[in-house]
Amino acid sequence: MRIAIDAMGGDNAPKEIVLGAVAAIEKYDDLEITLVGNETEIKKYATNLNRITILHTDEMILSTDEPVRAVRRKKNSSMVLAAVEVKEGRADACISAGNTGALMTAGLLNVGRIKGIERPALSPTLPTRNGDGFVLLDVGANVDAKPEHLLQNAIMGSIYAEKARGIANPRVGLLNIGTEEMKGNELSKQSFELLKNAPINFVGNVESRDLLEGVADVVVCDGFSGNLVLKSLEGTAMSLFSLLKEELTSNFTSKIAALVLKNKFKKIKDKLDYSEYGGAGLFGLKAPVIKAHGSSKSRAVVNAIRQARNMVQENVAGTISETIEKDKVQ
Amino acid sequence: MRIAIDAMGGDNAPKEIVLGAVAAIEKYDDLEITLVGNETEIKKYATNLNRITILHTDEMILSTDEPVRAVRRKKNSSMVLAAVEVKEGRADACISAGNTGALMTAGLLNVGRIKGIERPALSPTLPTRNGDGFVLLDVGANVDAKPEHLLQNAIMGSIYAEKARGIANPRVGLLNIGTEEMKGNELSKQSFELLKNAPINFVGNVESRDLLEGVADVVVCDGFSGNLVLKSLEGTAMSLFSLLKEELTSNFTSKIAALVLKNKFKKIKDKLDYSEYGGAGLFGLKAPVIKAHGSSKSRAVVNAIRQARNMVQENVAGTISETIEKDKVQ
Repeated sequence: MRIAIDAMGGDNAPKEIVLGAVAAIEKYDDLEITLVGNETEIKKYATNLNRITILHTDEMILSTDEPVRAVRRKKNSSMVLAAVEVKEGRADACISAGNTGALMTAGLLNVGRIKGIERPALSPTLPTRNGDGFVLLDVGANVDAKPEHLLQNAIMGSIYAEKARGIANPRVGLLNIGTEEMKGNELSKQSFELLKNAPINFVGNVESRDLLEGVADVVVCDGFSGNLVLKSLEGTAMSLFSLLKEELTSNFTSKIAALVLKNKFKKIKDKLDYSEYGGAGLFGLKAPVIKAHGSSKSRAVVNAIRQARNMVQENVAGTISETIEKDKVQ
Repeated sequence: MRIAIDAMGGDNAPKEIVLGAVAAIEKYDDLEITLVGNETEIKKYATNLNRITILHTDEMILSTDEPVRAVRRKKNSSMVLAAVEVKEGRADACISAGNTGALMTAGLLNVGRIKGIERPALSPTLPTRNGDGFVLLDVGANVDAKPEHLLQNAIMGSIYAEKARGIANPRVGLLNIGTEEMKGNELSKQSFELLKNAPINFVGNVESRDLLEGVADVVVCDGFSGNLVLKSLEGTAMSLFSLLKEELTSNFTSKIAALVLKNKFKKIKDKLDYSEYGGAGLFGLKAPVIKAHGSSKSRAVVNAIRQARNMVQENVAGTISETIEKDKVQ
């Protein structure tokens, strides 16, 4: 299996991307990697080029670039070339920690949609208190979604959770503002009806306040709502940690006490670090396309590679395609 | 000024409601209160009936009641009678910690909408890290909102923040999934255009991750999005505190250290306790209708009374009415 990686995308590129790739190669015997980017830069950090091929390019997409325009114009950028490796069959999956919108565009244009899937969904796995995590989709690929899109999200998320995350009969919930069946807006009411009859383990409506408590393995929503919730969870956690830091370093005694608890705080932070679960998959494309977090360190890159490798091995894209075709949920 | 209070609504009613009313009477010389509910029960806790009138009824709306049906059928419930006090001019505002949907219905049917306001908005004030707080509206009264509703929310929130919260030229932000002008779904794009030209200090799009950092004084959204974000903030904070508790009591040393920090943790919890800012106002009605948090203790009741009193004194409803009429933002 070969995975193409945009070596130039993300805040810590190319160093951490390359270090992650090397670490993954050492971990997985069946893995080959194509690192796309500036060869000189890549070689600085690639201590071991065993099973690693470098595809050189000087062009790159910036985080500030307008996504669609950047993908159209920068045809030799490291991100676009990584997607083209998949398109032309030289790689089985691709990964980038760069511009999210550009990766969605590059994935759509080059890797292409699965037949019958109307809109791909950006699908991160988020932490829960017990460490199991849950898949949230969509978080921004499709901001004006229809009920049919939420149905497809549910099927894609369920297949991913079962195949790539190894969860038997994953619980699929519909993100809503109450748990009763008739709650919500027009979109959620209509989606509820579709999900009830879908080939999934639908557990009904779930509320955003229960997500971190692990109320479902897969949580389905439109891209606007998902993005709001994702950023609320992130933002609240960050603000709380800032508050903690402020308060716990405000005098000598509490500084000492906080020092004693340092490892505990670190443990909590680690529990909430969702790069442990890999990156956000762009589900609904013909092959795995993974958006690693922009601030990914090598460890997060290894996790994204593991995730892409699971998706390829378990044929997640193929299973989605067969299910959509068979059940005509189009 | 007289405020009618549903003494039977909320998890801690009637005790904490009555204690709150008595405390508020002692605090504000100009205040008179009508407590609506079971007279015997109320008298158990009302140590002082100075400027407090009891309006007896045995009927009450339960938190499990279906809102619209409950309001229609239970015409003698404490909540409905409190709203009727406002309708018939015997009170200037009303407060309940009971069933939220029922209070919205009772408010709409009895207190009535301001002319030109299409949909009232449920509007809590949420905490920020610096303690200033921000008004979020709507959080669930109007789940399928149109751009015109968001414009009215912006105007109502701005007037409330300025008049009742004393914030000069309050910064009004549109809740969105990116800060750039063209971001978001159809609703947010169209609303952005309307807000740009509204008689408010519009600061553009704001993201949910920045809310607790105090990015705006008023944050405008549809009721579905607002409810999701509200519950994400609440849920994340609760889950994090549970995680902290779990970790910090896991061995003897950390238990001791955590004990030293007890007051610090309490201070953080207090900072996040949004009952400090009062209850959620149902903006767009002819008089203040305040939904106090279901778990309100007497202190939260005092805060809700202070809030209602400010709204009456500063004529928030009248100002909203004049502004909507003058600017024809209907």
